[in-house]
Amino acid sequence: MACQFKAIRRVEFSETDMAGIMHFSNYFRFMETAENAFFRSLGFSVVANKTDPPVSFPRVHAECDYKLPLRFENEVEIHLLVTSKKSKSMSYLFIFRNLGSTPPVEVARGSLTVVCVTEHAGKMSACPIPKSIADKIDTAPAEMLK
Amino acid sequence: MACQFKAIRRVEFSETDMAGIMHFSNYFRFMETAENAFFRSLGFSVVANKTDPPVSFPRVHAECDYKLPLRFENEVEIHLLVTSKKSKSMSYLFIFRNLGSTPPVEVARGSLTVVCVTEHAGKMSACPIPKSIADKIDTAPAEMLK
Amino acid sequence: MACQFKAIRRVEFSETDMAGIMHFSNYFRFMETAENAFFRSLGFSVVANKTDPPVSFPRVHAECDYKLPLRFENEVEIHLLVTSKKSKSMSYLFIFRNLGSTPPVEVARGSLTVVCVTEHAGKMSACPIPKSIADKIDTAPAEMLK
Amino acid sequence: MACQFKAIRRVEFSETDMAGIMHFSNYFRFMETAENAFFRSLGFSVVANKTDPPVSFPRVHAECDYKLPLRFENEVEIHLLVTSKKSKSMSYLFIFRNLGSTPPVEVARGSLTVVCVTEHAGKMSACPIPKSIADKIDTAPAEMLK
Repeated sequence: MACQFKAIRRVEFSETDMAGIMHFSNYFRFMETAENAFFRSLGFSVVANKTDPPVSFPRVHAECDYKLPLRFENEVEIHLLVTSKKSKSMSYLFIFRNLGSTPPVEVARGSLTVVCVTEHAGKMSACPIPKSIADKIDTAPAEMLK
Repeated sequence: MACQFKAIRRVEFSETDMAGIMHFSNYFRFMETAENAFFRSLGFSVVANKTDPPVSFPRVHAECDYKLPLRFENEVEIHLLVTSKKSKSMSYLFIFRNLGSTPPVEVARGSLTVVCVTEHAGKMSACPIPKSIADKIDTAPAEMLK
Repeated sequence: MACQFKAIRRVEFSETDMAGIMHFSNYFRFMETAENAFFRSLGFSVVANKTDPPVSFPRVHAECDYKLPLRFENEVEIHLLVTSKKSKSMSYLFIFRNLGSTPPVEVARGSLTVVCVTEHAGKMSACPIPKSIADKIDTAPAEMLK
Repeated sequence: MACQFKAIRRVEFSETDMAGIMHFSNYFRFMETAENAFFRSLGFSVVANKTDPPVSFPRVHAECDYKLPLRFENEVEIHLLVTSKKSKSMSYLFIFRNLGSTPPVEVARGSLTVVCVTEHAGKMSACPIPKSIADKIDTAPAEMLK
């Protein structure tokens, strides 16, 4: 069972804005990048799941606190930690660390809450996270979230 | 003095994702679009301000709750309400309404907190919101936030 | 029959990059924005068409020449002109004019070639542009393309 | 001297569109990603160069031909080849190969032309590519471009 995952992503030129830093909306794309890599590490894809029924995980809440800017070509560690796992939903904490600093420094901290849904006759409805996925995911111990 | 602003934006094809809906990160871009139009309506630009000293407003917090999806070509009203105005920071609430529904329906609700900063010798530091801007902005009464 | 369309779009903060100008990839999004508005002006949507069979228009070629930069809050006219209309494909020219200049100045010129496709049993194949759409679209006379 | 570079990038969820494939504008971002990695491999950054004068490389032309779609989580090889190196400008060819296919298949082919510029008193003007950069870059032999 996994309760965390670390992804690394470099800030691309197109992700900066005229203030010379990464645009604040792109942190949410980086969170998703880490989440998708976490799923792949468990043998699944966030979409086109091999589960029965096929499920997907739309977001119902997203937030981020920004402490220090990220700049072009910075390598960023996106540390995903599972903070809540319920029957039909999960929450993740994301800690962003700028690996270009020595030592790496936390620059932002965000979270996502996702709901497991399945589609039936063109309508989405919440459903339990399939056992094959749920069995592989655990919540992170409190001391890891500091 | 203004405590609110309504911007309208149509969901573009490039803002959708393979789930067929607007990608969740783009709601944050729409919030900023409304904020920038709010500033223009007051005679200012969020950047390149005519104030002395020149200031900008980086984000320190952003969040969004998603209730219903937005789809390609939906016209969206982004209703900005000023929820907090302090000496050096402001917070906005954003209510997203899908104008393609009859009647228009609230599909998401988000917020941004921004800090007023100025640059001196290449270093950013928080500073009071210039009086010329602050004098034009008021907080919205509580009953408008429901 | 229509051979041209003019859309207006303001450059958003998130569309700028650290060079202080609109990122070059966003001109392609603006082209698509104009194309989609052109289709709406004819009573159609680029997707979910009311045609039988339903069709969509994937791009097979895109290009752009950049002459002058666009900056945050510039209002841009995107002038679409139909340069070619064949049985199964169309090409558009796009002239970008910065309305923030007096007089408006051409800042870029691009083109898209799109193919009409339909899906059958999960496979895309080129098909004739439905008559209901084709009957409304004409090619622009050569003197308009200068 | 280097005349080519291969970068690998995975298609992210936020880069797909409602057609279920990578949005056509994102190929241009991938080209830039490869170009920036090419410069890093030579010991430079596309921006904030250590050269005297400091230079940057705005795009004057961009184009792409799309052959097959790219989908979420596809690993893509972006093969940059230098096709032209003049005193003040360079052109690159980019061959996109989907590494998720066996064998990898070419899905798109694009190009960028960039001009070397320096800024003086707030004005950009074309200037020779600094010798320290130019000495490390060569054009690819014709047989590599097929």
